[in-house]
Amino acid sequence: MAKPRKTPRPRAETPKGFRDYFGSDVTERAAMLGKIAEVYHRYGFDALESSAVETVEALGKFLPDVDRPNDGVFAWQDEDEKWLALRYDLTAPLARVYAQHRNDLPTPYRRYAMGPVWRNEKPGPGRFRQFYQCDADTVGTASMAADAEICAMLADTLEAVGIERGDYVVRVNNRKVLNGVLEATGVSDPEQQAAVLRTIDKFDKVGEAGVRELLGKGRLDASGAYIDGVGLSDIQMQPVMDFVQAKKIVLDRVEKELDSFADNKPIEYQQLLRVWSVERGPDGKRGLQHNAESYALLTARVLGFLNELIGSSTVGQEGVLELREISTLLLAQGYGPDRIVIDPSVVRGLGYYTGPVFEAELTFEILDEKGRPRQFGSVAGGGRYDDLVKRFTGQAVPATGVSIGVDRLLAALREKGRVGGEVEGPVVVTVMDRGRMADYQAMVGDLRRADIRAEVYLGNPKNFGNQMKYADRRGSPVAIIAGEDEFARDMVQIKDLILGARIAESATLEEWKERPSQVEVPRAQLVEKVREILEGQR
Amino acid sequence: MAKPRKTPRPRAETPKGFRDYFGSDVTERAAMLGKIAEVYHRYGFDALESSAVETVEALGKFLPDVDRPNDGVFAWQDEDEKWLALRYDLTAPLARVYAQHRNDLPTPYRRYAMGPVWRNEKPGPGRFRQFYQCDADTVGTASMAADAEICAMLADTLEAVGIERGDYVVRVNNRKVLNGVLEATGVSDPEQQAAVLRTIDKFDKVGEAGVRELLGKGRLDASGAYIDGVGLSDIQMQPVMDFVQAKKIVLDRVEKELDSFADNKPIEYQQLLRVWSVERGPDGKRGLQHNAESYALLTARVLGFLNELIGSSTVGQEGVLELREISTLLLAQGYGPDRIVIDPSVVRGLGYYTGPVFEAELTFEILDEKGRPRQFGSVAGGGRYDDLVKRFTGQAVPATGVSIGVDRLLAALREKGRVGGEVEGPVVVTVMDRGRMADYQAMVGDLRRADIRAEVYLGNPKNFGNQMKYADRRGSPVAIIAGEDEFARDMVQIKDLILGARIAESATLEEWKERPSQVEVPRAQLVEKVREILEGQR
Repeated sequence: MAKPRKTPRPRAETPKGFRDYFGSDVTERAAMLGKIAEVYHRYGFDALESSAVETVEALGKFLPDVDRPNDGVFAWQDEDEKWLALRYDLTAPLARVYAQHRNDLPTPYRRYAMGPVWRNEKPGPGRFRQFYQCDADTVGTASMAADAEICAMLADTLEAVGIERGDYVVRVNNRKVLNGVLEATGVSDPEQQAAVLRTIDKFDKVGEAGVRELLGKGRLDASGAYIDGVGLSDIQMQPVMDFVQAKKIVLDRVEKELDSFADNKPIEYQQLLRVWSVERGPDGKRGLQHNAESYALLTARVLGFLNELIGSSTVGQEGVLELREISTLLLAQGYGPDRIVIDPSVVRGLGYYTGPVFEAELTFEILDEKGRPRQFGSVAGGGRYDDLVKRFTGQAVPATGVSIGVDRLLAALREKGRVGGEVEGPVVVTVMDRGRMADYQAMVGDLRRADIRAEVYLGNPKNFGNQMKYADRRGSPVAIIAGEDEFARDMVQIKDLILGARIAESATLEEWKERPSQVEVPRAQLVEKVREILEGQR
Repeated sequence: MAKPRKTPRPRAETPKGFRDYFGSDVTERAAMLGKIAEVYHRYGFDALESSAVETVEALGKFLPDVDRPNDGVFAWQDEDEKWLALRYDLTAPLARVYAQHRNDLPTPYRRYAMGPVWRNEKPGPGRFRQFYQCDADTVGTASMAADAEICAMLADTLEAVGIERGDYVVRVNNRKVLNGVLEATGVSDPEQQAAVLRTIDKFDKVGEAGVRELLGKGRLDASGAYIDGVGLSDIQMQPVMDFVQAKKIVLDRVEKELDSFADNKPIEYQQLLRVWSVERGPDGKRGLQHNAESYALLTARVLGFLNELIGSSTVGQEGVLELREISTLLLAQGYGPDRIVIDPSVVRGLGYYTGPVFEAELTFEILDEKGRPRQFGSVAGGGRYDDLVKRFTGQAVPATGVSIGVDRLLAALREKGRVGGEVEGPVVVTVMDRGRMADYQAMVGDLRRADIRAEVYLGNPKNFGNQMKYADRRGSPVAIIAGEDEFARDMVQIKDLILGARIAESATLEEWKERPSQVEVPRAQLVEKVREILEGQR
């Protein structure tokens, strides 16, 4: 008789694009999110944890022509034929929650949310299909004070988790100004406007010449493929390029102006000189900062230049006014250009922003995979979006918010040595005599009651070498050893594993004698001595 | 021309059986989990956050005869035809993680995990399709010290989150003893054994008579439906009933024994009397506790009785020895019957346990939905399961662990007033003059820097009543008021909203005069005065 076919063993692996997080990867992230939550809480934001599963209808992720949800989400059909999906961000669920509970929520509603989101996208190196987001949003107010508050909170948050002032900058712009520029230059087709937006968002990647090509006829990219352009004429293109490079142009003008003065210097000469020195001159690199006057002057010049670009566009004028208001509110609270700046080069690719947009950038340098220095770059971004709730209720509800890239920020903190430095391993009580397990357990009990992380070795105790290897793998700072001999004399051996490793590596005979890595103490002094060693290791 | 049909608006609601958590529901749970994580960490357990999505193959959730995953999980087919699913617990993913990473993990591997799990089950009142679990497991050791450790950790955990000693008890039993009883009585069919297990797990619900019916021929349940019985004969049934009621029978015997003594009392008479008094007598209800001797005596009697029931069954003898070992280890560490007890009535329904099983029960009374007092009941359970990793690797890997019912434990803490009592609302700075927004923002900035939760009212400021309603909805303890008049004099009004509410309700004129709920102070004293009021409210 043939043997019945066995079911093959399942493969022990995560699905493609998913991963597990171990030990400090989990606890360091939790600690960072805890610090962020504290700041958000202090700003009056309330926690919200929405369901991870939403109806596809509520997420709005149906492709127009097909009856299956869009590929970007993980979706399935419920037993009652409804399509459900995992949330792909925390903003779409917020819109649903607000629409559903608006009568029970305060207006405006400030909320923060932290948790995983899922994207059904092609995974790649460092690109996962489940990752954390951490958002704060204010729903139900059109006031620029809400946007200013989010920017200030973002700056406070970065400092709270350990990014020092000077190592980051929050850049603020306004989408309406760009719309005004486009209006003034006659680009009125919304799809063309969106294409312009996506194009200038690539400025960092393809540079000025690349953006010009892409805004115009198109461009042969590095792979040899031809990318169609947006189709703007040179005349239409110029104000757009000027908008993105507004600050540069303003500084060029300041430079010329300074050159033009001979003996006859105007009252604002000192401030103009300071603007130039901070932004362009060698003094800036040596740490010269704006003062209130020089930054006010620069901002006024930039906003004035934007006013030139938007001409008589109403929406453009609104945008400039909004930028000015945010700037004023922030300066009044002491958030100067060392933390938050107005910067027309920030556009943010997402189509749904309708007014202010902001981005937090880390300005310190790291080495890229090829060892070249580069700026760490963006770790958070957001802006105002006034139409997300409307899908549900028919009424526009103004909202603004920010999303922190949790993994990127955590990577930045590691880069800066702000996390990952602690000794986390437990004290390991080794087992010399299986029959003494209750005594070993009593030892760890004593250590834990003294708030010292400790565990008994629970593997096969026969081979003592394995126990020491285990302690090593656990990153243990200290091992406890007690066999029949020690129990008879009511003593324990305490081994300093950190010192032991150092001695094994490099100690001289003198060092070895002076501070042996293993000491014997009475059982009653176990806790005291372990604590002393742990403190010495810090 | 007909109007183009509009897409209907999406419904703003969670899918059936899912819910959102707001504010303190989120933060109180996070705080509780944080305290639990601290205890687990101190015991040497490492955090693990596995992917929320697993292959259905790894979860083992395929029904034998169909090519679709079992209804219990939310599953969908990936673009490469693989079935993926949301995890339904944290144990199956642990088995997969251990099998996948076993060469990089310490042996034994102690890990804890906290997070949502998803069940594709019929939702009901208080029964959701997404909920939190919080597990700790030790994988890779057969030592009873691992089980004892988990029980001790569970007791420590309950106390750490705020359940006082005396308000809980961890009960320990061993599945092998039951198997031994069944072996001794000739029930050897595994399916029948499993049916016995499920039946005696219903003891609390259907009582002794009900269990007898279900173990025998069957039973007419309350709804009138006939439930088939397991089909044991009366002779087979008796040892099973004795097993479940072992403690009761032992105490009956103690009672008889005490009655039988006249003048001729044995040495252990005092301990026997204490056993009876604590467990049965009025002294127990008055708080008399076991001492080491009386509890040792009771345990010895219970284990002795179990030995009678299992006869010569090898597995049964193993079970009794394991129970004795756990009991000895725990007593040596000081975990007496006020925290952890041996109790043969605990069986836990899950089929996969292979040895020790445990359950944490809260013993204080609450009122049920009909106002009748009842014990709060189980909040955590677990046991040893030795076969979960084998599915992947072919090798049996011993493991033991516990799972805390996060929502139930949080409900218990609320019941005990351990969470939910704090004032969490922010100080609200009202807006009397829109043009002064920067000044209002500066006020909240000062408050926040002093670690006081504060926010500016960002709704439409026209109607001051709406601002006070908003403050009320936010649970604000204090409101700040400053209009032109106050700004001109550099003063602010500070309104104590808690006191204000109390006065509005019940104050006498004297109280009102003595401690008015609104005071005016110089702007420079804002923070100081607010802090004073907040401290007064505690």
